[in-house]
Amino acid sequence: MKNDHKITLTEKEMPTRWYNIVADMPNKMLPMLHPVTKQPVKPEDMIPLFPLELLKQEVSQERWIEIPEEVQDIYKVWRCTPLHRAYKLERALDTPAKIYYKNESVSPSGSHKPNTAVAQAYYNYKEGVKRLTTETGAGQWGSALSFATQWFGIELQVFMVKVSYEQKPYRKIMMNTWKANVVPSPSNLTEAGRKILATNPDSPGSLGIAISEAVEMAIKDEKSKYSLGSVLNHVLLHQTIIGEEALRQMEKAGDYPDVVIGCFGGGSNFAGISFPFLRDKLTKGKQLRAIAVEPASCPKLTRGIFQYDFGDSVGMTPLIPMYTLGHNFVPASIHAGGLRYHGAGAIVSQLLKDKIIEAQAIDQLETFQAGVLFAQHEGIIPAPETCHAIAAVIREALKAKEEGKKKTILFNFSGHGFFDLAAYEKYFSKQLTNYSVSDEDIKKWTSKLEPLIK
Amino acid sequence: MKNDHKITLTEKEMPTRWYNIVADMPNKMLPMLHPVTKQPVKPEDMIPLFPLELLKQEVSQERWIEIPEEVQDIYKVWRCTPLHRAYKLERALDTPAKIYYKNESVSPSGSHKPNTAVAQAYYNYKEGVKRLTTETGAGQWGSALSFATQWFGIELQVFMVKVSYEQKPYRKIMMNTWKANVVPSPSNLTEAGRKILATNPDSPGSLGIAISEAVEMAIKDEKSKYSLGSVLNHVLLHQTIIGEEALRQMEKAGDYPDVVIGCFGGGSNFAGISFPFLRDKLTKGKQLRAIAVEPASCPKLTRGIFQYDFGDSVGMTPLIPMYTLGHNFVPASIHAGGLRYHGAGAIVSQLLKDKIIEAQAIDQLETFQAGVLFAQHEGIIPAPETCHAIAAVIREALKAKEEGKKKTILFNFSGHGFFDLAAYEKYFSKQLTNYSVSDEDIKKWTSKLEPLIK
Repeated sequence: MKNDHKITLTEKEMPTRWYNIVADMPNKMLPMLHPVTKQPVKPEDMIPLFPLELLKQEVSQERWIEIPEEVQDIYKVWRCTPLHRAYKLERALDTPAKIYYKNESVSPSGSHKPNTAVAQAYYNYKEGVKRLTTETGAGQWGSALSFATQWFGIELQVFMVKVSYEQKPYRKIMMNTWKANVVPSPSNLTEAGRKILATNPDSPGSLGIAISEAVEMAIKDEKSKYSLGSVLNHVLLHQTIIGEEALRQMEKAGDYPDVVIGCFGGGSNFAGISFPFLRDKLTKGKQLRAIAVEPASCPKLTRGIFQYDFGDSVGMTPLIPMYTLGHNFVPASIHAGGLRYHGAGAIVSQLLKDKIIEAQAIDQLETFQAGVLFAQHEGIIPAPETCHAIAAVIREALKAKEEGKKKTILFNFSGHGFFDLAAYEKYFSKQLTNYSVSDEDIKKWTSKLEPLIK
Repeated sequence: MKNDHKITLTEKEMPTRWYNIVADMPNKMLPMLHPVTKQPVKPEDMIPLFPLELLKQEVSQERWIEIPEEVQDIYKVWRCTPLHRAYKLERALDTPAKIYYKNESVSPSGSHKPNTAVAQAYYNYKEGVKRLTTETGAGQWGSALSFATQWFGIELQVFMVKVSYEQKPYRKIMMNTWKANVVPSPSNLTEAGRKILATNPDSPGSLGIAISEAVEMAIKDEKSKYSLGSVLNHVLLHQTIIGEEALRQMEKAGDYPDVVIGCFGGGSNFAGISFPFLRDKLTKGKQLRAIAVEPASCPKLTRGIFQYDFGDSVGMTPLIPMYTLGHNFVPASIHAGGLRYHGAGAIVSQLLKDKIIEAQAIDQLETFQAGVLFAQHEGIIPAPETCHAIAAVIREALKAKEEGKKKTILFNFSGHGFFDLAAYEKYFSKQLTNYSVSDEDIKKWTSKLEPLIK
């Protein structure tokens, strides 16, 4: 019996800095543009929304950023997260590949999201912010931020997409347990919400609407700021704690990955696991493939265009230089709600453009098949988002078998599926399907972006 | 920052033996009696229900029983479970007490139950059993056994109490993911079920009925055996992996508990955490309090009588010498479904009778208050069962504060509450209540047991 089923770090071995990949990128990202003036956004433009320290991190070129002691202290509630060798999955696939996974599902809210939620709540607290506003779709981000804000005595207003609010009551109760106020969006609390309800009282809501409500409330209330769970540079930065730990854990296992894999919504969990390893590629010429895995029904990385686009559907956010399907693209209702986003973070987009990372799109049914195989052999039921990463891992492991090649694969197990079992039931009863996206559809939404190119 | 937020063991440090406390008990338990002849049960009487190896363990007097390598190998999927120091809860309580908890919620099915499920599935597999039958209430045991049986290619038929089957669909889907066949009980699959349905087609079912169905099916089908998730000696034995790990982890933390606490249904999680420490008390004279915590609405340990009684409601099982409220006692519908059991394991009952352990009964509202405080400070939402242990821990910690005494408390965090959030919502909206049990009520059910005394 080997000694590497589960590798952890002692508190002394824990990373104390986040890694900012911007310092090592051969081509930096283009600047974000102001939604009205179309001029590069200055940090001060964003002060109504974010605390200064996060705005500094957003534009920082420093390679390392110290994790405040208070944040490190809360990280200890669940970190270091375990690195597992997936011996049983390897055996089931009969592959010569070694498969490791970093288990972020052991966090309080069940995913990687608290890594940035705690940091964001901390910086807001330090600058005297009394209330945060945010949106949440399926509830992963909302519950992570609830956990974090209650720590610092910050009030939290969550706008939860109405259809999810009704379908996933458990996520709402989890947020309530951590003292957050949760309303279905569209709501009567904002002008944006009231306008939509006036036209359509039965609106099921959307992430775009919920963002508009959260942003509006933060702008109108001096005591409030806004918080986002992915896409932005500072969010990706905070998630690098995952990969920094994994680097040290792989070293303890006496191994190093040939391939690093993460599922991809806005980019934060993929960045978290891969950026610290990409540092070795960018600065030491290490051979390494990093694969971002998106749903075939929302293929911004593999079939979108690289262009300036809004982060939200309504057009209130700055224009971000990114791979996008257009901010009005409406992805099919797949169960991986966290991956249903039209765009991608600016850093990850630039890395993809420069071919430093790769992307793959996978169909829904293949992802659930992969998730069930994983649950049966490794014992943990993955979130539908995480199933995408697992499907890509299985492809790589089977390719290794075909080619008779040894290979070490590392992926991020971004979250558990305990609140997604209804999706599994649909999969078992054959009620799930794949969704294809036509080239015409993509053209329809992305062609409208032309005037915004810089 | 101290180095003991989370203590784990390397694979080399892992225990390789279960501890059988029977070897060290000053007074052994009385023998179980045959339900019909009222004579001591012989292991061979139970062969239709259990594999030989488990029957041997049931009556073993050996202090140590080797954990088979195959079982150790599966344990590695989630074990060693972390031992946490609850610094943040301590601070919230402003107590001089040190609080540690052993986190069994990280297992595949979210509780301590897989520790025995895997062992039972293994021994059945070794003896060629093709199918197991079992009952489950809220679903914790059924999902643990599903995880275990699919490993060994054993079919599993779960009879799930109908009211839970309808209220907790997620637990059922979890079992399906691990290939179990789950039916609501009463069902048409057994004579017992058909009889009840004929009289009352809308019967909501009960654990007693579900046990009868599972036992009947196992007896009638030569290829099937039956599996139970608590109460029996071999089940308690398998759970001692918890305390054996905790002993070594406390040693690593440079500490030793003054008090060990576990919630109490049939006795398995309490036994698991406490027996290895009780060994030090029984063989080395170590000072140690071990507290079993039951619901005030089902107070068999604190207000029941020590007597022979059936393990099930129907009277099909052997008579067990135990603390009981009578096998026809119907506990109120508290949310801690796993603690709604009229009796207690024979070993634990004998230890209580001999004052080697203690018991406390706590009301439902106090337990939820404790669970919410824990979730807000330690980040993990506990199962309603686990909330009972936490409430007792808080009592001890506050007493230490009152008395200005240092004290080290260890408790078993037996499971997470991700599938119990509806209960939390009821607590928040003040829909939960306490349930008192009158002395008359207890007398009514226990007085019927008189003729069975030995």
